[in-house]
Amino acid sequence: MTPDWQDLTRFAFLLAEASADAILPWFRRNAAIEVKAGAVWDPVTEGDKSGERAIRAVIEKRFPDHGIHGEEYGIKEGRSPFTWILDPVDGTRAFVCGLPTWATLIGLTFEGKPVLGLMNQPFVGEMFYGNPEGAWHRRGSHTEKLATRKGIALAAATIGTTAPELYKGEDQAFFQRLRAKATLTRYGGDSYFFALLAAGHVDIAMDAGLQAYDIAALLPIITGAGGATCEWTGKDPVKGGNILTASSHKLLEEALEQRTLSV
Amino acid sequence: MTPDWQDLTRFAFLLAEASADAILPWFRRNAAIEVKAGAVWDPVTEGDKSGERAIRAVIEKRFPDHGIHGEEYGIKEGRSPFTWILDPVDGTRAFVCGLPTWATLIGLTFEGKPVLGLMNQPFVGEMFYGNPEGAWHRRGSHTEKLATRKGIALAAATIGTTAPELYKGEDQAFFQRLRAKATLTRYGGDSYFFALLAAGHVDIAMDAGLQAYDIAALLPIITGAGGATCEWTGKDPVKGGNILTASSHKLLEEALEQRTLSV
Repeated sequence: MTPDWQDLTRFAFLLAEASADAILPWFRRNAAIEVKAGAVWDPVTEGDKSGERAIRAVIEKRFPDHGIHGEEYGIKEGRSPFTWILDPVDGTRAFVCGLPTWATLIGLTFEGKPVLGLMNQPFVGEMFYGNPEGAWHRRGSHTEKLATRKGIALAAATIGTTAPELYKGEDQAFFQRLRAKATLTRYGGDSYFFALLAAGHVDIAMDAGLQAYDIAALLPIITGAGGATCEWTGKDPVKGGNILTASSHKLLEEALEQRTLSV
Repeated sequence: MTPDWQDLTRFAFLLAEASADAILPWFRRNAAIEVKAGAVWDPVTEGDKSGERAIRAVIEKRFPDHGIHGEEYGIKEGRSPFTWILDPVDGTRAFVCGLPTWATLIGLTFEGKPVLGLMNQPFVGEMFYGNPEGAWHRRGSHTEKLATRKGIALAAATIGTTAPELYKGEDQAFFQRLRAKATLTRYGGDSYFFALLAAGHVDIAMDAGLQAYDIAALLPIITGAGGATCEWTGKDPVKGGNILTASSHKLLEEALEQRTLSV
């Protein structure tokens, strides 16, 4: 039996609403910042944590069999082929700066394949979502179908990535080569650049060292809008890693050629 | 006679409204991009141009004697000590990527001194503004006084800047030294980081190579919130240049020491 994507998508809207109610009271309130153990300064706020608790509570009530994999509270194995992949606040660094470019990522996989994804920015008041039937942008009562911008070659492309320092060694050479060939490169978008690629405003969105919860929710949005994705070391993109997305398969291939050149 | 700051501020709200109505129809519409002459890819859209035309029309009707200095339509000399300094879309690169971090900057100088400033982001629906009586954030019907975050040393600071590539030569060394000492550096904010510094979420906001219209409107917001500004080669900040702002005079001095070290 095919899952009812519309029903699951409406359920994802409820998760977005619950997380927004839990997160927004912590935004721009100079809330305490915890720092996760590790080499990189990796902040977490009560916004991240209460956001994920809110989402988990709604899932566990309606779908107690579903698996859950969240950034803040880890993995709960399910007894169903469905697993929710959650990043309550993607872009916690933007969040702690007060910049409205963080987002809540809610993804759903079926037997490990990404099937539904939602990116919600409740302060701006917009969401991008996708499922096997397509991808859409929703703001207030207005919903619009998403489609990537076609026919753009690398020389005319706009690239979005979080920060140039994310790329190490060969990956830095790859990124710099792309940047030199493209028309414009912008930083600081976190998941927004992937959503804006789906919406036809950015041609390449990329980030290195992503986790599954940073990307799983974005894949159905990108795919549903006609975009192409790869993990450039060969991993399954739904597991995270070094993610390159492009508005078309042709542009993805042209971008990847720059990697071969730079190795 | 002291100017009526409240009256002038209410007038600036009208300018923000007029520009929002003119700009928003061009946002995320894949509008045509013109490229200005010069070495750097410098885009301009109909959003920039119609935004500035809308503001100029309202000023010219109410204050025909005032001077106007706008990014898109240049300088109109006034027969009054007041000059309006306008950037209808600060962050045109963010604008063409669909990222809601561009802003409309409306500044007012009196005998060359910045006295009133407004930064409006109509898609997000928020504005930051300042005058000799203070600085405020306004969203919908809610207005809140702005104050910078105090008592932060460089080691605990968050830095916001548009992109690392803006810094050349010694300035790059200066920026990298600051970045290495601070806790967090974020890119891609354009004027937003200066507004968020006034709001107490960012401790240092800086950019190199700014024009007067990139910064004049932000100075009364920063000053009104208790922040400190300098142009690090010694120019008057209201004229643009290499602008460093900090949440306190003490932090500004600590940051500037890194420049002396790096020369």
